[in-house]
Amino acid sequence: MSKGYNVAVVGATGAVGEEMLRILEERSFSVGNLRVIASERSEGRVLRFCGENLKVERLSSASFRGVEIALFSAGAQISKEFSPQAVKKGSVVVDNSSAFRMESGVPLVVPEVNPDALENHQGIIANPNCSTIQLVVAINPLHQITRIKRLIISTYQAVSGTGREAMEELKDQIQQWLKGEEIKKEVYPHQIAFNLIPHIGQFLPNGYTEEELKLANETKKIMEDDRMAVTATCVRVPVFIGHSEAVTVEMGKELSVPQVKRILSRAPGVILQDNIDDHLYPLPLEAAEKDEVFVGRIRKDKSIKNGINLWIVADNLRKGAALNAIQIAELLIKENLL
Amino acid sequence: MSKGYNVAVVGATGAVGEEMLRILEERSFSVGNLRVIASERSEGRVLRFCGENLKVERLSSASFRGVEIALFSAGAQISKEFSPQAVKKGSVVVDNSSAFRMESGVPLVVPEVNPDALENHQGIIANPNCSTIQLVVAINPLHQITRIKRLIISTYQAVSGTGREAMEELKDQIQQWLKGEEIKKEVYPHQIAFNLIPHIGQFLPNGYTEEELKLANETKKIMEDDRMAVTATCVRVPVFIGHSEAVTVEMGKELSVPQVKRILSRAPGVILQDNIDDHLYPLPLEAAEKDEVFVGRIRKDKSIKNGINLWIVADNLRKGAALNAIQIAELLIKENLL
Repeated sequence: MSKGYNVAVVGATGAVGEEMLRILEERSFSVGNLRVIASERSEGRVLRFCGENLKVERLSSASFRGVEIALFSAGAQISKEFSPQAVKKGSVVVDNSSAFRMESGVPLVVPEVNPDALENHQGIIANPNCSTIQLVVAINPLHQITRIKRLIISTYQAVSGTGREAMEELKDQIQQWLKGEEIKKEVYPHQIAFNLIPHIGQFLPNGYTEEELKLANETKKIMEDDRMAVTATCVRVPVFIGHSEAVTVEMGKELSVPQVKRILSRAPGVILQDNIDDHLYPLPLEAAEKDEVFVGRIRKDKSIKNGINLWIVADNLRKGAALNAIQIAELLIKENLL
Repeated sequence: MSKGYNVAVVGATGAVGEEMLRILEERSFSVGNLRVIASERSEGRVLRFCGENLKVERLSSASFRGVEIALFSAGAQISKEFSPQAVKKGSVVVDNSSAFRMESGVPLVVPEVNPDALENHQGIIANPNCSTIQLVVAINPLHQITRIKRLIISTYQAVSGTGREAMEELKDQIQQWLKGEEIKKEVYPHQIAFNLIPHIGQFLPNGYTEEELKLANETKKIMEDDRMAVTATCVRVPVFIGHSEAVTVEMGKELSVPQVKRILSRAPGVILQDNIDDHLYPLPLEAAEKDEVFVGRIRKDKSIKNGINLWIVADNLRKGAALNAIQIAELLIKENLL
């Protein structure tokens, strides 16, 4: 490895962690030394990066010596325990967990939307939840033109959002089903193959799930608009990669469908896919392994003044997680904020 | 067969037609003679009904002689051509297609919601679209207490709504995927296995699909409220049976979550499944082969005054099609409207 930044990936053997390694390589991120860190279970495993073999190290307080950028994707508990230690050792942490996202003083950043929020970081930058990132990339360009007053979101979320075991469970259940065997459930409380589970994250006393609350709260924090009214229903679907969202947007003033299309066709990180004559609209299967957020099915919502309906799809492991974290790291470098 | 009504099922070999035969048998519908009718392709096939073998007859203008109740489920074109002929022969038609649903003078009926609409029928009664039926069964009890002002619906619709070939296509695609073979698409324009298709029915110039328009227009007609504002996004999902809907309801006055639960727990045709501590919420896999409409995930939608979110699931072949048609026939008999 050449002269560059010393980077650690914590949770390197997970679905998002492996995506991080792929993306660092793809984007020729300026890596000096790369540490791949995981739990005891994966210690000693070998991961490939830029033609080299990297041995997985076990996470400890010593993991961050000399590390300039620490990318965490190992769950909120690990982040809570080890991120502050990494910061003490001088690392800047980009944390993909929910541990710090709503903490005041911790920037919650989507580079296309609120890059300036990075400026006052104190060592930890939070990467938003997957379903939030694709939403704000798609709607912020509209919000910049006319304030969004209310959002109603229904999600269709891929099993990879849960992790690699969930992807295995979907595949296993389909094979069990084809063979007429008993369907085994370990990751989800219900069968996910040929089914839907309207339950992502823990339930809260008000009947919402954590995922639904994250979508509302993180969106307001990133878009810096506390008055924005947001409600969501989050549903797990039997898709491997690619989260989809049916979104109803109520805006401050009217935008025509051609205006919305024009705005989105120029928006950073967005690809407009909206040609109903050609059956062109965003599909999770086609968004998988892509970097952009795909938007289509743009229609006037005539049930309300200034309403627009959108269908928003993105690769939840890439833009929804690994890619956004690495884009934050790139921005930290570019803005001399390390 | 004993003394009873002479019934014809048109489209008897389709997914809904076969469900109709099963339900007529299950409910001990008072059948005298039963004719099973289909296209030329299925002529001579044998279907079982109450322990007897019935030979499939080919549809013709002569099919309806002596038929008192004709249940049509063979598509809008067939209904348009043959329903009027059946009526001329003295049959009362319950039509599961979209052919006549929005015609004034044709009742569009869900027995739990608007049974009185049957009274003035002129020979044809329309059975609403699958996604409409489960919606109105679940929300009409609330509408009776306080007028619903606006509905925002996102659907998650099973492939059986398209028909048996679509169920085969999903199964085939999954086998092709497991074997690493090329995925073949015939029924849908895109792969449905491990994917979502936000496109049900033809597209209209305003960017909506027919399915989305049906949901809005049929709901207003059945609930007899033209002022109700409705918008929808309809999405096909890789589920065999069971349509699901994430619904945001804006009501005229506030109902608390316990009030909504109490109303729905007593509502005809509804089963309340809402106990988040036990991970109890409606699932399409569990709604399959059931008669009722399942409602859960009931929460205040705090993004608007008097808002409630619901998750509504039902077997689209049963309550969404065959069962509702047969319930209409039962009501015609009970009210002496044949």
